[in-house]
Amino acid sequence: MILILTPNIEPESSSYQQLIAHLSRLQNIQLRVHREQGSEQSLTEIYLIGDTSAIPVEDMKSLPGVERVVRISEEYRVLGRHRGDQRPSHFDYQGLRFGQDTLHVFAGLCAVDTQEHVELMMKALRDLGQVCTRMGAYKPRTSPYSFQGHGKNCLPYVFELAGKYGIKVIAMEVTHESHIDEINDALRGTGSPTGVMLQIGTRNTQNFELLKIVGRQKEFPVLLKRGFGITLSESLHAAEYLASEGNRKVIFGLRGVKTQLGNPHRNFLDFAHVPVVKRLTRMPVCVDPSHAVGSRTSGPEGILDLMHATAQGVIAGANMVLVDFHPAPNRALVDGPQALLLDELPHFLADVAVAREAYEKRVALAARYAVELQTAGA
Amino acid sequence: MILILTPNIEPESSSYQQLIAHLSRLQNIQLRVHREQGSEQSLTEIYLIGDTSAIPVEDMKSLPGVERVVRISEEYRVLGRHRGDQRPSHFDYQGLRFGQDTLHVFAGLCAVDTQEHVELMMKALRDLGQVCTRMGAYKPRTSPYSFQGHGKNCLPYVFELAGKYGIKVIAMEVTHESHIDEINDALRGTGSPTGVMLQIGTRNTQNFELLKIVGRQKEFPVLLKRGFGITLSESLHAAEYLASEGNRKVIFGLRGVKTQLGNPHRNFLDFAHVPVVKRLTRMPVCVDPSHAVGSRTSGPEGILDLMHATAQGVIAGANMVLVDFHPAPNRALVDGPQALLLDELPHFLADVAVAREAYEKRVALAARYAVELQTAGA
Amino acid sequence: MILILTPNIEPESSSYQQLIAHLSRLQNIQLRVHREQGSEQSLTEIYLIGDTSAIPVEDMKSLPGVERVVRISEEYRVLGRHRGDQRPSHFDYQGLRFGQDTLHVFAGLCAVDTQEHVELMMKALRDLGQVCTRMGAYKPRTSPYSFQGHGKNCLPYVFELAGKYGIKVIAMEVTHESHIDEINDALRGTGSPTGVMLQIGTRNTQNFELLKIVGRQKEFPVLLKRGFGITLSESLHAAEYLASEGNRKVIFGLRGVKTQLGNPHRNFLDFAHVPVVKRLTRMPVCVDPSHAVGSRTSGPEGILDLMHATAQGVIAGANMVLVDFHPAPNRALVDGPQALLLDELPHFLADVAVAREAYEKRVALAARYAVELQTAGA
Amino acid sequence: MILILTPNIEPESSSYQQLIAHLSRLQNIQLRVHREQGSEQSLTEIYLIGDTSAIPVEDMKSLPGVERVVRISEEYRVLGRHRGDQRPSHFDYQGLRFGQDTLHVFAGLCAVDTQEHVELMMKALRDLGQVCTRMGAYKPRTSPYSFQGHGKNCLPYVFELAGKYGIKVIAMEVTHESHIDEINDALRGTGSPTGVMLQIGTRNTQNFELLKIVGRQKEFPVLLKRGFGITLSESLHAAEYLASEGNRKVIFGLRGVKTQLGNPHRNFLDFAHVPVVKRLTRMPVCVDPSHAVGSRTSGPEGILDLMHATAQGVIAGANMVLVDFHPAPNRALVDGPQALLLDELPHFLADVAVAREAYEKRVALAARYAVELQTAGA
Repeated sequence: MILILTPNIEPESSSYQQLIAHLSRLQNIQLRVHREQGSEQSLTEIYLIGDTSAIPVEDMKSLPGVERVVRISEEYRVLGRHRGDQRPSHFDYQGLRFGQDTLHVFAGLCAVDTQEHVELMMKALRDLGQVCTRMGAYKPRTSPYSFQGHGKNCLPYVFELAGKYGIKVIAMEVTHESHIDEINDALRGTGSPTGVMLQIGTRNTQNFELLKIVGRQKEFPVLLKRGFGITLSESLHAAEYLASEGNRKVIFGLRGVKTQLGNPHRNFLDFAHVPVVKRLTRMPVCVDPSHAVGSRTSGPEGILDLMHATAQGVIAGANMVLVDFHPAPNRALVDGPQALLLDELPHFLADVAVAREAYEKRVALAARYAVELQTAGA
Repeated sequence: MILILTPNIEPESSSYQQLIAHLSRLQNIQLRVHREQGSEQSLTEIYLIGDTSAIPVEDMKSLPGVERVVRISEEYRVLGRHRGDQRPSHFDYQGLRFGQDTLHVFAGLCAVDTQEHVELMMKALRDLGQVCTRMGAYKPRTSPYSFQGHGKNCLPYVFELAGKYGIKVIAMEVTHESHIDEINDALRGTGSPTGVMLQIGTRNTQNFELLKIVGRQKEFPVLLKRGFGITLSESLHAAEYLASEGNRKVIFGLRGVKTQLGNPHRNFLDFAHVPVVKRLTRMPVCVDPSHAVGSRTSGPEGILDLMHATAQGVIAGANMVLVDFHPAPNRALVDGPQALLLDELPHFLADVAVAREAYEKRVALAARYAVELQTAGA
Repeated sequence: MILILTPNIEPESSSYQQLIAHLSRLQNIQLRVHREQGSEQSLTEIYLIGDTSAIPVEDMKSLPGVERVVRISEEYRVLGRHRGDQRPSHFDYQGLRFGQDTLHVFAGLCAVDTQEHVELMMKALRDLGQVCTRMGAYKPRTSPYSFQGHGKNCLPYVFELAGKYGIKVIAMEVTHESHIDEINDALRGTGSPTGVMLQIGTRNTQNFELLKIVGRQKEFPVLLKRGFGITLSESLHAAEYLASEGNRKVIFGLRGVKTQLGNPHRNFLDFAHVPVVKRLTRMPVCVDPSHAVGSRTSGPEGILDLMHATAQGVIAGANMVLVDFHPAPNRALVDGPQALLLDELPHFLADVAVAREAYEKRVALAARYAVELQTAGA
Repeated sequence: MILILTPNIEPESSSYQQLIAHLSRLQNIQLRVHREQGSEQSLTEIYLIGDTSAIPVEDMKSLPGVERVVRISEEYRVLGRHRGDQRPSHFDYQGLRFGQDTLHVFAGLCAVDTQEHVELMMKALRDLGQVCTRMGAYKPRTSPYSFQGHGKNCLPYVFELAGKYGIKVIAMEVTHESHIDEINDALRGTGSPTGVMLQIGTRNTQNFELLKIVGRQKEFPVLLKRGFGITLSESLHAAEYLASEGNRKVIFGLRGVKTQLGNPHRNFLDFAHVPVVKRLTRMPVCVDPSHAVGSRTSGPEGILDLMHATAQGVIAGANMVLVDFHPAPNRALVDGPQALLLDELPHFLADVAVAREAYEKRVALAARYAVELQTAGA
């Protein structure tokens, strides 16, 4: 059960204090308070953890300082959509809005290799009006003998170049808690010229200890990738580990799952789950066509499978696209074969725009027909 | 290796006879002749079966009556796309063109239950300008104790109603060779008021004996569904069973595969394979969102997952949509929960049109950028 | 609901006639009568199909001619085990007993290629006291361009050689109803020197039309292989298609399923399902290690994976082993790489015997501990 | 390439110094030295990392201090079996030998709940001569709102009770590096009355940062569970993360994989991979029937599926069995439904003994037939 308090309520106020006192007397119920400081107001929610089935919603509504009460199902307490739930499905970061209603493309390097490539990539993005990118510094690799990323050594120049080219948010995978400190250090050392979205990769989707630690910091938003061998539901539960520790700036990433039924693609694309995640939770949804498709094959129209996959995600309402580009794929240290060329960036963005426009038309169409059906039914 | 002969060459002609005589002397090579009688000309192809690696293309080109020679890889001999292959990727039936460049919606009843429902369905289609439908008479069911379809008993009224409402092609699953005879009988008995596309379901994708028999008749085109537990490649090989027996009017159907990773959808949607099938073969590609999604859940925009899935197929170039509608889903005998309502047909068709328009824009965009890149590279 | 009648009851008897008259008056209930003529007595069962939940067991028990009544769950009506069910879990064929308590090895050729190889194989079996074998005449192959088996042409010499070497039962896959006629013809033509167990392969597990036809003949027992991409439950339902048409001499075959998680084995071995099938149904269970493992790799003890897999099936209670041998695997036309050599047959049989002996010890142990626990609990 | 040096070579010796000096001059080759201090002698191996294909084995053999040279394939450098590889496939810990030739049963609590249950469990083990157990203190759970284990709080009494009842090794999952410190602290605090085998669970199989840290300590052996959604090969690569950091006391655990094809078992049992892991690597192999089966269902012989699964693992050569028992399963906080009762421990151990005896007979049989075939071939 969630109690949504009146906006801007102060912890020192007497109504708040009375409320807490009352709630503390509930038997076998724990309280978890979540306070979100927005630019204009502060919002406070109190989660009642335990068996709340016997607590009447009306009783809770009548308590001082309580504006609304939502009885939640067991699943996805914090991030889920519950009956009567009007909590937001978006957040702001670095002046950008990330929501179930927006779309951002994060084109960039799967793995940072040289400063030159980073600069070429960012310049190309700037020239096309892009303000987000992906840059991999920490790479989890199947074999311990493969290149594992340049780690903290590349962070200073990556951040400085981001500042130089107006990049506001860099998506960057972390695989250990120490990486957060390293990122913070490098940001401070370079004067915080950009922002970072922490990415949890598919091999760590159920690395709950990492999720808890990442969830405890509220500075950086988090992109959690779906586990490639577990169900959607299990992956959504993993997102709750982030949120239950306090961080709700969570984007959920679809990147394909592992089964031979997806051949010849490297993974089996799961972008049909875009509307499912948006229905079950309030998280924006990202699609990663590069890792899903894993190659540069194309159909008879001369359109890459990877671009078809992107369009499929976007026309169904995806809110973020994570995609690998590289100035010289044959010299890339990781996943070169699937990278798009910088030359292809304008086409890629134009193709995404067509799919997004179609999505928006579809939404308008649905609204129109809903009215018609309602009228007809009346 | 395929020898494409000069159009309209006559089997009685001396050039043809010389050609055959020559080919018959090739060691360990079998000939298979395929003759397609079109409306304007006849086309003849000769397949050389066996180890043709030692036979020079130039030698074959110089033979009498040979216009072109295509060396084919082992895979998908007849239906595959091979290097330098310019054979068509479309066919005509009932005055309609089914190709990798067209789109047809086959909305209809998963299983025929009553004559009244058939008529309601067909009338709705006619009113919206549709000329294709699906009507299930033979239903393979997991349990022998479930309803198995009305079989041949419903065929006469289904065909008559199709004629009455201007339906030109009905997609209809067959599970035994005798069903083809029954369909032929019913068509003859009703004066052939419509056409039929024979559908091979996912449980029979590797029922090779049925495929051979269906392939031997050239009257009806065939919609072969992908096997839900086998790889794409294995399913494409199955299509060759149809083609190698003579019938090349084959459409390949994607309908999702079975794995728990697709939950909460009934099957895991495989529509990312639309461009793959079009690249590997010359078959038009059908998507079946109803069986893939298996429910009427919808995203927060109020758009059904099933419509999102359809849009995903169409924006990537799907050529046919097979979708379940029902005038009264709660009284449907098979798969009611996933059926769309007749009221929803206009919205569905409008939504498909948006996605198709986006696909066409994307194709134009790709053509434009291809020119630009070429110019830039020159 | 099943009514098991008194043994040897005659359809002409008045008790039987009264019984049928009574049952026919039950509303919305269909009757299906199954009569099994054994060597010593005839058994008759009447299945009440429809919603029998409102019919009291006691009422039915009191009807003339009824010895026992079993209320069955929806699943696996005929072949399933139901509460209080004491119907047999075995059948006899060619003087051999096939039951959940017996074990038979069917070593032989995956695909018959030459008469010489058939004879070498059968002689080796005879010399080691074996009376069963496998011989593939009809081979379903992924590609239409692969060798499809010698079909009916090889049947006469296969059957004659079986007679010569004392082979009593040959397991043989059929993929079309006409194959049954061909087998019958060949048996008659050769004086029925042996018996045949019809095998339904994994690609036809849900070829329900074939199952119905095979189920209608009661002469040959049937080995139904599990579908390699469907659940166990779906495959068990398929077995009901055989039984509901009248043939209950059904053996269920485990042969591995298709998923890359089974690599480096060709299929993912499912022999852990041996006790599951025996719990849910009354069918004897066969394991096919050859197709499951698909290679001749071995562990550091010098024991083939294929033999380890066999031992795993047998120690858990498997009742039949289907295994590929070949006198000259490098000349085999189908699946040579996985075939065992004739030289290895004695070792294979000895290894199976060790595992069977262990199974029997385990059964005795379980019985002993059950008594001890009961005594301790008393 | 691995250089195995003469036993007991001293790093200060001149031959060692010359060797290192020589190797350091090899271009683009890194050295990694691994020194194992056994009870009787010290063994030193030098790994040459990089492209060693151009380095002749003979040249390396002739260097001072080098006894043997093994050219290794890329896969599983440290733990793999390579051609001509005679490195050991066992290690010692707490006076027990863990090898590809031994068998240890680790029966115990999936999750420690109360001190009383721990004591009941350990007493039962002691009474039956067991010296190993499993005790879960840190439990990774799908939902953040589920019980997560008692963590470090339970360690002191678990270790003390182990000492009291003669338990030498406790398998215990860790999910974060801090757990190793907590275990070390608790062992020191209690006077090290027992030993610990660190267990990496299936959700962390590719948590490479955790693996590296666990691999850097050489005190505790490690049981690495297979990832339930990744291939065997990917999981074996993960084991290399442990070994490449220095710890080679690694046991590989099979615990089933996630696919609906394994239903009604909770996971799909992969014990057919026991001989595969033993062939590809030098790791002992553990099987975990409890998590694989996930229930207490049994076959018609009255033997639990879980015991059948165990027997299948053991008859194929498994070296360790991890199995859940609980004094009061209905009060267990985690995975109660699958736990065996203390009363069933004697039966379980006797059943394992039957399977192990069969395995040993099979090994002897294989040795005998190998000789016979060799003799026959001579």
